[in-house]
Amino acid sequence: MPLQDCYLFEGLSELQLHRLAEICREKHFQKDQWLFHEGQTADRLFLLKDGKVELLTKIGDITELPITIIRSSGSCFGIAALVAPYLYSLTARSTEDCSVIAIKRADLERLIRKDYELGFTIMSNMSRYLLKRVKETREELKIHFKTLVKSAHA
Amino acid sequence: MPLQDCYLFEGLSELQLHRLAEICREKHFQKDQWLFHEGQTADRLFLLKDGKVELLTKIGDITELPITIIRSSGSCFGIAALVAPYLYSLTARSTEDCSVIAIKRADLERLIRKDYELGFTIMSNMSRYLLKRVKETREELKIHFKTLVKSAHA
Repeated sequence: MPLQDCYLFEGLSELQLHRLAEICREKHFQKDQWLFHEGQTADRLFLLKDGKVELLTKIGDITELPITIIRSSGSCFGIAALVAPYLYSLTARSTEDCSVIAIKRADLERLIRKDYELGFTIMSNMSRYLLKRVKETREELKIHFKTLVKSAHA
Repeated sequence: MPLQDCYLFEGLSELQLHRLAEICREKHFQKDQWLFHEGQTADRLFLLKDGKVELLTKIGDITELPITIIRSSGSCFGIAALVAPYLYSLTARSTEDCSVIAIKRADLERLIRKDYELGFTIMSNMSRYLLKRVKETREELKIHFKTLVKSAHA
């Protein structure tokens, strides 16, 4: 899986991708294993290689609210590992056997301290992704508002 | 207004803040002036100095949906100027006479190309802010879901 398939690494140079590849570790999980839990210290960023990973949040002690399923090769999750206060905000569970690339936060930070342009590119990509998410939510809000206005005038 | 009052500039060194101050331009707007419109090219980031600025979005041609009011000195808006594809996603209007600091995207980009650590710090702060926004939305979703579950069991 080429690292630049992940939106976070778009625009990195060949050399930067090579350095990044050196800190990547492949890991395998069987179906129904937990990769991390909501609230835990986010010390690793993950990229999916093969399989499927479900991200979910807990409501109370029992109810699980599914948020999304990661199924495309190169999709990343656990991005809280790159953002203070470095706490996973979701829980990740493999829904089938899967292979992932894990990047330790400490290793990435070491790389960034040597090459801030790499850090700038990654964090710019992250901001682009997150701003898009915020905008999408606002669009949903608009749709609800439109429905509300329509029903008020009905 | 000290620049580090803005969350984007937290953690910058004295020298970096000094360089940033050199590209800041103060601007004044009277009550009910438009600072920028949704969909326009985002070529400037703004920081509030005095007064109040309302951010809103248009629904159709007539209806305005208010999103927030910027009222604290040091609050920034127009952050789309730092994130590709550089298009304002909201409209900004002064709701009273106000003074703002405008930073041109082209000037900031020039600064970042000379000092990627500065760019990394700003974009990390941006990601932190945006991830918080995404999490807040998710918490709201949880509340709705809880209400739903409760009413289903009622």
